[in-house]
Amino acid sequence: MLENIPSLNNLLKSLQQVPYLASKNLNRVATYFLDMDEKQLQKFCDVLVSSKNNVLRCEKCFSWYERGSNCIFCSDNRRDQSIVCVVETWQELLTIERTGGYIGVYHVLCGVICPLEGIGPDDLTIEPLVSRIDLGVKEIILATNQTPEGEATAAYISKKLKIKNIKVSCLARGIPVGSSLEFMDRLTVYKAISERRPF
Amino acid sequence: MLENIPSLNNLLKSLQQVPYLASKNLNRVATYFLDMDEKQLQKFCDVLVSSKNNVLRCEKCFSWYERGSNCIFCSDNRRDQSIVCVVETWQELLTIERTGGYIGVYHVLCGVICPLEGIGPDDLTIEPLVSRIDLGVKEIILATNQTPEGEATAAYISKKLKIKNIKVSCLARGIPVGSSLEFMDRLTVYKAISERRPF
Repeated sequence: MLENIPSLNNLLKSLQQVPYLASKNLNRVATYFLDMDEKQLQKFCDVLVSSKNNVLRCEKCFSWYERGSNCIFCSDNRRDQSIVCVVETWQELLTIERTGGYIGVYHVLCGVICPLEGIGPDDLTIEPLVSRIDLGVKEIILATNQTPEGEATAAYISKKLKIKNIKVSCLARGIPVGSSLEFMDRLTVYKAISERRPF
Repeated sequence: MLENIPSLNNLLKSLQQVPYLASKNLNRVATYFLDMDEKQLQKFCDVLVSSKNNVLRCEKCFSWYERGSNCIFCSDNRRDQSIVCVVETWQELLTIERTGGYIGVYHVLCGVICPLEGIGPDDLTIEPLVSRIDLGVKEIILATNQTPEGEATAAYISKKLKIKNIKVSCLARGIPVGSSLEFMDRLTVYKAISERRPF
């Protein structure tokens, strides 16, 4: 019956592209937009377009900043500009920033190397990362995720940085705080034991 | 740190209003929109606005139809206009329509009676349903959901229709096809037994 309501069909197809909208909920989300009054919907669209115009990627660290102001990391002299934490996406940057315990700066890769999806090193911001090194950077923390793609990307970057003779570290792996050893997966426990530290 | 990027903050707040977008995924969805190229984003907004303009609610049955054409249910003479199936929302209409086994027409209530959320009978399309009855309707099928609100709404409607002296039915309740009796909840089994039918 949807072929008789082409505009509704188009709406559903557009919503289908949005990540993290489960297809079983698409009809409900479409109803949400159709039931909005016209002004609200226009406002929603305006927010989308204006955020696209006003939120820019920093050319140095590739995190977001507001048009007209500076990158809050790269332009902040209270932060240690000699420690660079490399993360896959801006979301991971937020997670680290929320801890309040990191005083260095960031470098957002904008993805991971994934040959199956056709994403190679040149599609990421690895080249700008390597050229950043010469500007007084002393340590690189590789904080990619512990997925096959994330670890491959970290390995690729560390190889690239070898010639630069710079300290490269990665996040500690082990038992998460608050969880019980009994229910941990084998690999995590293995890593926690083999990478144990003085008490 | 988000207070330093107000446009991004606005975007996140707008996305927060969209139903079925889990808050843990908001950052990823925001990144999806920011990474879109400008033309794509404009197209997405155009689809939203044009669907709002072109998808209208039928004044008789309150399901959606395309501007410039007629409601595919109410204007279809091959359908039995004397049987009206009452559903909560357009999504339930789709579910019934997909079975291909229903030849009558529909009436979309656009919600259920829910005093806790301040939704009374007057906020739904019950009045138009009652006035539809006189136009040659022989049977009303109440297909609201088996939630407290859905059942209360069905009870309210059936009471309203009593004076009209019309046949009112509801969907059969029982064991769903393909499921095993062992794992059914008590109430469903109770209803399946008490509403048993000749084999």
